[in-house]
Amino acid sequence: MRKVRTFSNDAALVNERRNHIIKIAAELIVKKGYNNISTRELATALGMSTGGLYHYIGSKSDILYLIINFTAELTGQTLDRFADELKDAQPLDQLKESLKVYFETVDYYRDFHNFVNHIMLSLTLRDRRIVYQAESRIIQFFESLLNSGIESGDFRNVDAKIVAHNIVAAANAWANRGWYLKKYYNLDKYTDEQVRLVLGQIAAPDKAAPLGLSGR
Amino acid sequence: MRKVRTFSNDAALVNERRNHIIKIAAELIVKKGYNNISTRELATALGMSTGGLYHYIGSKSDILYLIINFTAELTGQTLDRFADELKDAQPLDQLKESLKVYFETVDYYRDFHNFVNHIMLSLTLRDRRIVYQAESRIIQFFESLLNSGIESGDFRNVDAKIVAHNIVAAANAWANRGWYLKKYYNLDKYTDEQVRLVLGQIAAPDKAAPLGLSGR
Repeated sequence: MRKVRTFSNDAALVNERRNHIIKIAAELIVKKGYNNISTRELATALGMSTGGLYHYIGSKSDILYLIINFTAELTGQTLDRFADELKDAQPLDQLKESLKVYFETVDYYRDFHNFVNHIMLSLTLRDRRIVYQAESRIIQFFESLLNSGIESGDFRNVDAKIVAHNIVAAANAWANRGWYLKKYYNLDKYTDEQVRLVLGQIAAPDKAAPLGLSGR
Repeated sequence: MRKVRTFSNDAALVNERRNHIIKIAAELIVKKGYNNISTRELATALGMSTGGLYHYIGSKSDILYLIINFTAELTGQTLDRFADELKDAQPLDQLKESLKVYFETVDYYRDFHNFVNHIMLSLTLRDRRIVYQAESRIIQFFESLLNSGIESGDFRNVDAKIVAHNIVAAANAWANRGWYLKKYYNLDKYTDEQVRLVLGQIAAPDKAAPLGLSGR
């Protein structure tokens, strides 16, 4: 992680305050655009003075970096939680549960996803790489789940890479295409339909019926 | 369409020059970010003087509007072409061919898609609505294709809205996640796999085999 300047020696406090800054900043940026907010405006939204804000960050662009890094670490934490909770489950249950937790996480942090999506082309290549690595890690998580199921005969022999990629695209779509999707779906319904579609693609024919996939 | 100021009376020439401006501007913006380019830099890339550029546009933000509007009109034209060419085909062939042409179009105009994606949160609500309408129109096109196939019994009774939405998300992913996808796929292979996955989701069981969908 890049070192972001602070004048405080209390690491726990800095961390707590920064997480608060990250959350409020992401909301504000998604609402108004990064270039349209000033550090003064951000400080006001945080109930801080501009000087107080600069106690925790060195510059406005540090906020971008903190948000991107937060989103990437979040992904890692979420995947570790999946892997731990699901290590003894069957491939199909692992996939279903992972999809649910993943979609919930994206929903909860949708401002961050929108922010990263929005800011991508303004990032330096080094910072883009942080985002790429985080996304690649999720794709690989689902890809290896799918490949385990294919090897064990629980799933059909699909192109695991593209199915995993579509899962990530569908989750991102929930974050950044909410303007359309929320007219017709809530998170539960959207997740259920996507899970149904993914299982329809990958469930081995003889295992499809017990999952309620045969027609609707 | 909003009126963009010009000093020229030759409508055809203005249109031709603007299309050129749009193409070069979209490329440059995707490469460097909208806020990082000046009109002077854009003029240089176009082989024009800054004054020459202002002959065709009134301000830098007009370029945003022109690109967004171009992308929206393009969508309309593409869909009209689909509808005309495919009007006598079977639902499954209509869907396959539409998917191919749609993915090709997104690939060809990927700079525009990336641009719109990038700039979305910086747009006014009125301009966002242009993008929303264009995207909704594509989703509705595929949704109604799917619904016709469901009614005729050619397709399974899936949630046409979400399948249509996933098609648009998969096409957008090709434009804005090229950094990942192009390591593993070219356009043809990506399109083939996505077509296979969509057909796997919607093909009625007794019609699946002749399409080469039974295993790989």
